[in-house]
Amino acid sequence: MICQRIVCCGKKLARRASRVRARGMTDELKSLYEFLRFPSISTDSAHAADVRACALWLQGKLTQMGLSVELHETARHPIVVARNQHRQDRKTVLIYGHYDVQPVDPVSLWDSPPFEPEIREGKIWCRGATDNKGQMLAHVLGVEKTLREEGDLPVNLIFLFEGEEEIGSPNLAPFLREHAAELRCDVIAVSDTGMVGPGVPTMGYGLRGIACAEVTLRGPKGDLHSGVYGGAVANPATALARLVASLHDAEGRVAIDGFYDDVAPLQAWEREMWQKIPGVSDADFLAVTGSPATFGEVGYSAAERVWARPTAEVNGMGGGYQGEGSKTVLPAQAFAKFSFRLVPNQDPQDILAKVKAHLEKHCPPGVSIEIELGHDGKPYHADPHSDFGKAAQRALKKAFGREPVLIREGGSIPIIQAFREILGADTLLLGLALPDCQIHAPNENFPVANFEAGIVLNQHLLRELAL
Amino acid sequence: MICQRIVCCGKKLARRASRVRARGMTDELKSLYEFLRFPSISTDSAHAADVRACALWLQGKLTQMGLSVELHETARHPIVVARNQHRQDRKTVLIYGHYDVQPVDPVSLWDSPPFEPEIREGKIWCRGATDNKGQMLAHVLGVEKTLREEGDLPVNLIFLFEGEEEIGSPNLAPFLREHAAELRCDVIAVSDTGMVGPGVPTMGYGLRGIACAEVTLRGPKGDLHSGVYGGAVANPATALARLVASLHDAEGRVAIDGFYDDVAPLQAWEREMWQKIPGVSDADFLAVTGSPATFGEVGYSAAERVWARPTAEVNGMGGGYQGEGSKTVLPAQAFAKFSFRLVPNQDPQDILAKVKAHLEKHCPPGVSIEIELGHDGKPYHADPHSDFGKAAQRALKKAFGREPVLIREGGSIPIIQAFREILGADTLLLGLALPDCQIHAPNENFPVANFEAGIVLNQHLLRELAL
Repeated sequence: MICQRIVCCGKKLARRASRVRARGMTDELKSLYEFLRFPSISTDSAHAADVRACALWLQGKLTQMGLSVELHETARHPIVVARNQHRQDRKTVLIYGHYDVQPVDPVSLWDSPPFEPEIREGKIWCRGATDNKGQMLAHVLGVEKTLREEGDLPVNLIFLFEGEEEIGSPNLAPFLREHAAELRCDVIAVSDTGMVGPGVPTMGYGLRGIACAEVTLRGPKGDLHSGVYGGAVANPATALARLVASLHDAEGRVAIDGFYDDVAPLQAWEREMWQKIPGVSDADFLAVTGSPATFGEVGYSAAERVWARPTAEVNGMGGGYQGEGSKTVLPAQAFAKFSFRLVPNQDPQDILAKVKAHLEKHCPPGVSIEIELGHDGKPYHADPHSDFGKAAQRALKKAFGREPVLIREGGSIPIIQAFREILGADTLLLGLALPDCQIHAPNENFPVANFEAGIVLNQHLLRELAL
Repeated sequence: MICQRIVCCGKKLARRASRVRARGMTDELKSLYEFLRFPSISTDSAHAADVRACALWLQGKLTQMGLSVELHETARHPIVVARNQHRQDRKTVLIYGHYDVQPVDPVSLWDSPPFEPEIREGKIWCRGATDNKGQMLAHVLGVEKTLREEGDLPVNLIFLFEGEEEIGSPNLAPFLREHAAELRCDVIAVSDTGMVGPGVPTMGYGLRGIACAEVTLRGPKGDLHSGVYGGAVANPATALARLVASLHDAEGRVAIDGFYDDVAPLQAWEREMWQKIPGVSDADFLAVTGSPATFGEVGYSAAERVWARPTAEVNGMGGGYQGEGSKTVLPAQAFAKFSFRLVPNQDPQDILAKVKAHLEKHCPPGVSIEIELGHDGKPYHADPHSDFGKAAQRALKKAFGREPVLIREGGSIPIIQAFREILGADTLLLGLALPDCQIHAPNENFPVANFEAGIVLNQHLLRELAL
């Protein structure tokens, strides 16, 4: 009996393994693997050639599908645009995505090489698997499948793919303005956001904006012996700590003058709906992040803090000795990199001006300050109950087999607001990422099931939007 | 005429160059170069073999001089002891030094390779040139010269050289206790401190103590996307900044409960004498450090702050993204390395307990805290007007041709207090470093003139102490 059962289990396992192997060899996954292997890190100039190679691969893929493709040079990384044959009697849908990725450090924390995709536990592990190569390629492959199955699409399609999203899309808005006529569309779809949990279709109707800044404090001309000089001159690391500490009060509220002036309050129906969404309770946030406790603005749930309240976050901070053991220096300088996540109706330029004024005002004595303002993008908010919104929800329901939930997103896709301002179209946020996809972090991953659902979603979406 | 002058200048330059080359080839400098080339960085386990090789070189040098030499193993880096033939009718003088050095990062800021000594502008540029290889080798070569010139020394000599000073001499005090009888001496001399300016002989009669600690704050289990999670959980970098900021008040006074309880006030004669010493005004501190302003405890000059007041310094601080550009993460953890410089009668263990209590009490919510206490050493203070003190001042006057000044030192040589407690002898601090020798920093250097004066000083010192 026991032997038989083992044989039986063995057969099952073998069958499952062979299915996994077969899945690993689908054309879709093969395409994704190729796409993921480019280390297209847009922020790092050392990877400029990799970003370009990735764009060229994409150009080839789209051309092969029969679309007409243009690769547009920018001051930094190329923009790829592809179209089917447009007809006047069809709606025009623009699908946006980005083929650039975040840096991968600390590499030592990855369980497999960051640019060598592999499938474990039903997930594809690779930098960019979720953000955004996996999600955007699902749309490409959905279109490929529809074209193969039906010979045509139900809509006029524009694919717009950029290589600078992770550095704030500096060249996309100018491109949109320059090509506004050719890019005119009725609605835009983007899969670069999250699902609240596995299998729960999720439509986003809001995004936080972003504003970045870096501050460097300089003291002595070089690192000093902390014994020989300590006490006589200001320590830039200490000064930086005081400056960074000044950004919040003890309860985690941002302490910059006027920071909350233009914040639109949460609406009652949102708070009510969000309380009922599975997987986004404070306990869920704790479980996913692994933090010892939730922490933030008093009077808001974790989801509310992330989706509808602004933040001031330190993304990186450093100064002095970083190595093993101790080195008793008084460092010459110290830096902090900040990003501020903004909500309607905060304006990034207004916030950056307030940030700069705050940093200058609160800079401790004895050091010099240098403030470098970085990229920024406006927050976004749209009506989820528009016709296109309802069409997208029908497509989500068909792809996932259940009613979608409506949320805002904590992340920023600044270009979404630019789409509205320049192209005059709203954007449907049809995210496929899960909370544990580790985007921007080591061990980024994307469930194979979500990748496959994304392909199906694209097919339903174009059909529903065409109605 | 013009041609002649060029020829003349050319000859002068050639003569000067040949003198420099000749100086570069003295046996003394040759020895120093050999000694400096060992990258004997004691804190970095990757350099353990280099530290050992340096000790073996020293053993060889001392043996060659006719001294009886012992190399003692410790748990980490060896201790080298050397003696002449001792006689009951002579005083016993112990000369201490250390052959280990500080790390060299950031290497990019060095003008020449950190372990390849070279002479430019009359200075020897190399890690360890001043701290402490150049100063300690001057004593070795002074003894060598006296032995060569006179066949014997006027005192019983004990050389005691360790390889762990830069990591707080963890194995030296146990060694002293174990070998107290063989190391018994009347007085100790150490050149590991500073001169207030070029050509100004300087005797130190006090040293600050030290206590080190490192704190790590941990939040999420991995770096998080600052958009997707920012606002819901505490940012360890922000929390660290708040914690570090809590160490001082706005005027730079340490804000740890009880920190100043045992601080002995400055004496009137010290403040009066120090005001008259050239080269240690607030303006001088500014010029040497290059800081935009002096900063520190109100009511004290820069020299008083450094020589007689305690500090809390951040030696290194870090968390999150450290690279080029921006990376919008909420870091999983952040750290700070601290050193506290202590003055009589502060006790390092008492201070570390207060530091730990402060860090635990002020740790912001939402993160976990880990505190690692590091090495420590007591402050030191002795009477500069003792018989040995006066003898040392006579030797300094003979070596440099002018009256020495009496100062305390801001740095720490914790073992000096251990010498007093275990061997029962006071220490003469006969520093040869200049304020711009860049010890512990890139471009460490030691004037050739100070190296040569150190050799002469050793010869006078042993003679004067013998009286």
